[in-house]
Amino acid sequence: MSSSFGRMFVVTIFGESHGGVIGTVIDGCPAGVELTTSDIQSELERRRGGYSEHSTSRREPDRVKVLSGIFKNHTTGAPICIVVENTDVDSSTYEEVKDTPRPGHADYTAYLKYGEFSDYRGGGRFSGRLTAALVMAGAVAKKVLSWFGVRVFAYVTCIADVVVESKNIEKSVETVMRSRLLPFPCPDSSSAKKMLRAIEEARKRGDSVGGIIECVVVNPPPALGEPFFDTFDGDLAKILFSIPAVKGVEFGAGFRVASLKGSENNDPFTIENGKVVTRTNNCGGILGGITNGMPLVFRVAVKPTPSIYLKQETVNLKTMRPATIKLKGRYDPCIVPRAVVVVESVAAVVLLDHLLLQRGSTVLGGHFCLGK
Amino acid sequence: MSSSFGRMFVVTIFGESHGGVIGTVIDGCPAGVELTTSDIQSELERRRGGYSEHSTSRREPDRVKVLSGIFKNHTTGAPICIVVENTDVDSSTYEEVKDTPRPGHADYTAYLKYGEFSDYRGGGRFSGRLTAALVMAGAVAKKVLSWFGVRVFAYVTCIADVVVESKNIEKSVETVMRSRLLPFPCPDSSSAKKMLRAIEEARKRGDSVGGIIECVVVNPPPALGEPFFDTFDGDLAKILFSIPAVKGVEFGAGFRVASLKGSENNDPFTIENGKVVTRTNNCGGILGGITNGMPLVFRVAVKPTPSIYLKQETVNLKTMRPATIKLKGRYDPCIVPRAVVVVESVAAVVLLDHLLLQRGSTVLGGHFCLGK
Amino acid sequence: MSSSFGRMFVVTIFGESHGGVIGTVIDGCPAGVELTTSDIQSELERRRGGYSEHSTSRREPDRVKVLSGIFKNHTTGAPICIVVENTDVDSSTYEEVKDTPRPGHADYTAYLKYGEFSDYRGGGRFSGRLTAALVMAGAVAKKVLSWFGVRVFAYVTCIADVVVESKNIEKSVETVMRSRLLPFPCPDSSSAKKMLRAIEEARKRGDSVGGIIECVVVNPPPALGEPFFDTFDGDLAKILFSIPAVKGVEFGAGFRVASLKGSENNDPFTIENGKVVTRTNNCGGILGGITNGMPLVFRVAVKPTPSIYLKQETVNLKTMRPATIKLKGRYDPCIVPRAVVVVESVAAVVLLDHLLLQRGSTVLGGHFCLGK
Amino acid sequence: MSSSFGRMFVVTIFGESHGGVIGTVIDGCPAGVELTTSDIQSELERRRGGYSEHSTSRREPDRVKVLSGIFKNHTTGAPICIVVENTDVDSSTYEEVKDTPRPGHADYTAYLKYGEFSDYRGGGRFSGRLTAALVMAGAVAKKVLSWFGVRVFAYVTCIADVVVESKNIEKSVETVMRSRLLPFPCPDSSSAKKMLRAIEEARKRGDSVGGIIECVVVNPPPALGEPFFDTFDGDLAKILFSIPAVKGVEFGAGFRVASLKGSENNDPFTIENGKVVTRTNNCGGILGGITNGMPLVFRVAVKPTPSIYLKQETVNLKTMRPATIKLKGRYDPCIVPRAVVVVESVAAVVLLDHLLLQRGSTVLGGHFCLGK
Repeated sequence: MSSSFGRMFVVTIFGESHGGVIGTVIDGCPAGVELTTSDIQSELERRRGGYSEHSTSRREPDRVKVLSGIFKNHTTGAPICIVVENTDVDSSTYEEVKDTPRPGHADYTAYLKYGEFSDYRGGGRFSGRLTAALVMAGAVAKKVLSWFGVRVFAYVTCIADVVVESKNIEKSVETVMRSRLLPFPCPDSSSAKKMLRAIEEARKRGDSVGGIIECVVVNPPPALGEPFFDTFDGDLAKILFSIPAVKGVEFGAGFRVASLKGSENNDPFTIENGKVVTRTNNCGGILGGITNGMPLVFRVAVKPTPSIYLKQETVNLKTMRPATIKLKGRYDPCIVPRAVVVVESVAAVVLLDHLLLQRGSTVLGGHFCLGK
Repeated sequence: MSSSFGRMFVVTIFGESHGGVIGTVIDGCPAGVELTTSDIQSELERRRGGYSEHSTSRREPDRVKVLSGIFKNHTTGAPICIVVENTDVDSSTYEEVKDTPRPGHADYTAYLKYGEFSDYRGGGRFSGRLTAALVMAGAVAKKVLSWFGVRVFAYVTCIADVVVESKNIEKSVETVMRSRLLPFPCPDSSSAKKMLRAIEEARKRGDSVGGIIECVVVNPPPALGEPFFDTFDGDLAKILFSIPAVKGVEFGAGFRVASLKGSENNDPFTIENGKVVTRTNNCGGILGGITNGMPLVFRVAVKPTPSIYLKQETVNLKTMRPATIKLKGRYDPCIVPRAVVVVESVAAVVLLDHLLLQRGSTVLGGHFCLGK
Repeated sequence: MSSSFGRMFVVTIFGESHGGVIGTVIDGCPAGVELTTSDIQSELERRRGGYSEHSTSRREPDRVKVLSGIFKNHTTGAPICIVVENTDVDSSTYEEVKDTPRPGHADYTAYLKYGEFSDYRGGGRFSGRLTAALVMAGAVAKKVLSWFGVRVFAYVTCIADVVVESKNIEKSVETVMRSRLLPFPCPDSSSAKKMLRAIEEARKRGDSVGGIIECVVVNPPPALGEPFFDTFDGDLAKILFSIPAVKGVEFGAGFRVASLKGSENNDPFTIENGKVVTRTNNCGGILGGITNGMPLVFRVAVKPTPSIYLKQETVNLKTMRPATIKLKGRYDPCIVPRAVVVVESVAAVVLLDHLLLQRGSTVLGGHFCLGK
Repeated sequence: MSSSFGRMFVVTIFGESHGGVIGTVIDGCPAGVELTTSDIQSELERRRGGYSEHSTSRREPDRVKVLSGIFKNHTTGAPICIVVENTDVDSSTYEEVKDTPRPGHADYTAYLKYGEFSDYRGGGRFSGRLTAALVMAGAVAKKVLSWFGVRVFAYVTCIADVVVESKNIEKSVETVMRSRLLPFPCPDSSSAKKMLRAIEEARKRGDSVGGIIECVVVNPPPALGEPFFDTFDGDLAKILFSIPAVKGVEFGAGFRVASLKGSENNDPFTIENGKVVTRTNNCGGILGGITNGMPLVFRVAVKPTPSIYLKQETVNLKTMRPATIKLKGRYDPCIVPRAVVVVESVAAVVLLDHLLLQRGSTVLGGHFCLGK
């Protein structure tokens, strides 16, 4: 259960790694949004990766098909169902590992929850492949947000031991926006090179590496977030942890607040162009769970790809005895760059959901509202 | 809106810092749980603090009153309403700051959201005082969890620059369980002394300090978490970010995964006493959003108390001109130790909510289930 | 579980018939609504009944106490907790019937669900007394709706065999509005007299009677209702069935549609004062689950009070043998007139909830919205 | 928004009358249920109708396609996406009526809500065609319910002025179960003939007729329903009103309770085969919103098909002047018989949803639960 997210802009996802399709049903998208398959297709391309010849494990065209909710190239207010087919599927390698859960994967917890009935091929519904559905939903959300001038962009700030110094990302928004569309979405090109090298080294050893993604929302609508429990940061953190491999989420100064004094961490208010702004942004644009209008800034920690080529210890669930496992197949030694667009996508979903909570379901289309 | 949390064990909270009461309505608590006010009172005491003469800003008896849902000292299945009265309230100092939002507080975002109608006295509903309601709800959840042998405990691992080395917390569960009940809940007594000194120094300067809380759940029920979106970690992160001052949440190795290799981060499976366990616990007891039966381990970053005695920059919302502010009143220079029981409480709420999702609403009481 | 209703205007209720209080927490009420206890008190008075000396079983002052969410006589955007105390409570008669469920009451199903732990005194949480909480929440909703010119009113159209002919209710709205405030809220005074006689006859025989309530919403906001599942009629029907004793709900022509031809039942559209209206209103103001702007019209069937003085067959749940029961105490032989304000209240709750879904959470207050 | 129903067994539907597909995503179905397309196909056939050569407006194969959630012919615990394609689609007749809303249809309210962007072809998402999605979801729910011995069946009891006397339906369950699979699902064959005649007469006049469907659930699980608001009857009523054309819902004695005395309406308890039962079933198997274990009995009023061939008054939304409309195309003069399986389907969905609320998400599959 629980394959839906959101209260007003409700995203439901379905599909399995080695099933027929990956899909999403988007409910609550306002009527009247111009939407074409290419809006979605271009975002999916970013997820497919391609920063190096080794980066992607699967080579699928991911041709977007819209099954409902669009009429004359506009949203109608009805639920939008979008699917991509799974084509590059080789399930043969999974039969041999089905009783021996892969360390770092959800195989064992899926078995705990669904017993022998779980679809174990390629991780089933726990596969990173499911994030294609998040990207499709995020593409729709971004299209609506663009009406409001809201822009969401993420980029890699750390891979293994290579950390981008923050002074190297403090460029213009436009530069960063562009850099995130690079094959390797890191705004600091010299760090990017080192990161690619670290990935390549891991790949050669049959190992993998993790990293950190930072996401910024420019011009976020103020006053989003519904306390006490449906805070903006809380809702965003919840969906971020749905992305496979995310193990940490922090806003603004994040874990660094532990070592700051109150006098350093508090963001002083001032007036700029007649508007209230803060001089610093340690709060990451959120105070009391509500957006204050400053850029949203948050980071997620992405663990190293659990699929590695080294021999690993596991157990045989049938015999309940120790076993070893050595994976075959094609795996991406670092999923961080491909997760960048996924992080943006879920942020867009949360932003639009809260925007609609604040402004109502018929915010754009609707004769009734247009007439007002 | 959105003052309720949970799907099966639903906690609704209400009240303001300087209103009449702080309260909670707990819906979905199974019938038949023995529950007395002292179960709740003892947890509230832990929240009141008292690690030093300066630790608490308010001195309230916090006398628990149960208004519904208990009959003959047992839960009945009906919603349980519990309140504590606000007694130590001095609202006079707030009139002068009502147009000048305090940096680091939710005053400004509350104004954005509710306009001039927001209750600005002591932060209104955004006050840390509201966490008393979380603790009351958590006390009830813990009582139910104890039937299942689940134990939740948290402690301070970092204040300002003082960080407890993890080897110093790797003691027996019993030791840690005891230490968390100390006035200053840190399992490493030599670190605790340094932390108290750091707090005292901040206090003398009129400043404040932040820190990190770690929480462990021993004997957690396996197979909790409802993918894709209602993951156990996601739901827990969401409610953790509702706690005022939390700016980061991480599970298991957390942000450290960025610099780990896959071969280091993957937790190898093995068999122990006929059960599947993992040799390490970098995943913090959660894989694919589902608990695997290993101890849950997570950490939250708590920002320094935003209320400080130093002069701060702000703006006047009426005149829309820069202003300065210097707070009077009594503030706690470090809320981290008092937040320990709050972190435990929300973890207990999420655990019970997911346990009931897994086992059903009539898990304990109910003739129908008892008869089965 | 499930003591909350609504998505934007969320009403949580708690309390038991013979517990300390009956209460509600109202979350999502827009900030800036002027609200005093007398707004709520006056509605509660209507529920207390008093159409005859025998009408009410309990004589409680029902003094409203607001525990949170109001500051300077206005709503703040924070949850509003309101309670009334139970004072006229005599639980002694319930000890003897606790093992012998009363026919027509929820005693047996409560036992099935909560076992021996259920609060059996006076029906516990299943008592009609809980509708006081609905009336308190409805009073708040009505106050907000009045800003939008929406008026909700209900009245009795049938008691036992006495049915008001519809031509006798087709008076001006003002007349009907006034009549509903009569001790016996029936707009046709000659029918009202017959109804009172039917009730009195039932009372003398130790029996009880049921009836039908009709509710009309004048000037309802158009375009409310969120298909496919959160239709306006569906949401309204759901909460109407929460009112103890309601066994049927119908909209517009209701069950009469079964015998109408399409050509009779379809409401022809026309233009009146430049607005689209329908010539008839067989649809009751709702098409496709969405309000069309015409008056909402619906009816509920209310069963006869299950508490009667005649000897009844039951079983002893301890011995599992047949038994008989003869109730003592004071019961109202007809709850229909007192349910009128309850029906209005839940209709107001649903109207406001859907209005906020359509227009957003900050529809009234909020600097952000006021500033737009 | 709001295209999902349920808390544990969550049904999301999508598609439009003249779009590519009608589909459903079913989330929360327990793992381990054997499920084939023919389980779903056979139910869809019942919805297609065919009681006469004139009964169905569209002739579509409705070939079921399962896109996710099934592996080796069993449910996996992952969301199940099922679609049927729309093939018999002629949208040409809708262009001319797009500015002149059809009386009795949702055209006008769709326009109010979504403006010009609504998909007006064949009613778009408001078409009765969407009930195919409900039937697909219901087929899955019925399969699970059959594990628990729960059987749901509905039949026609009234068409136009032809009403089946209840003594003619009081046959054995098996007889009624069989009769509902007849082309014209009415358990009383002599009434059925009269009904068919009434429909044929309406058809000849270019008019349509309505009717009443009764539904019975044999062997329902006791103790389902979550008071105060998520009552079993309330949840069922809510989804029943989502079925286009339903204008009334009643349980047990329904609207007849208005004229019953308490002594007649109260169902006396007694013991039968060691179990508590009631001698009568005026409550329709539900007391206090909770099932008591007796058969569930409820009825819905279905309005006459709004599509008729007679000239009707309407308005032109562009010119805002009166207009007339005369529909072309092929319409079913009575949708009641085809709605029978739809009523069963939504009842099955609610039953399973509440069963899972009571027993937990892993009620069937799941190693964890199997292992217990």
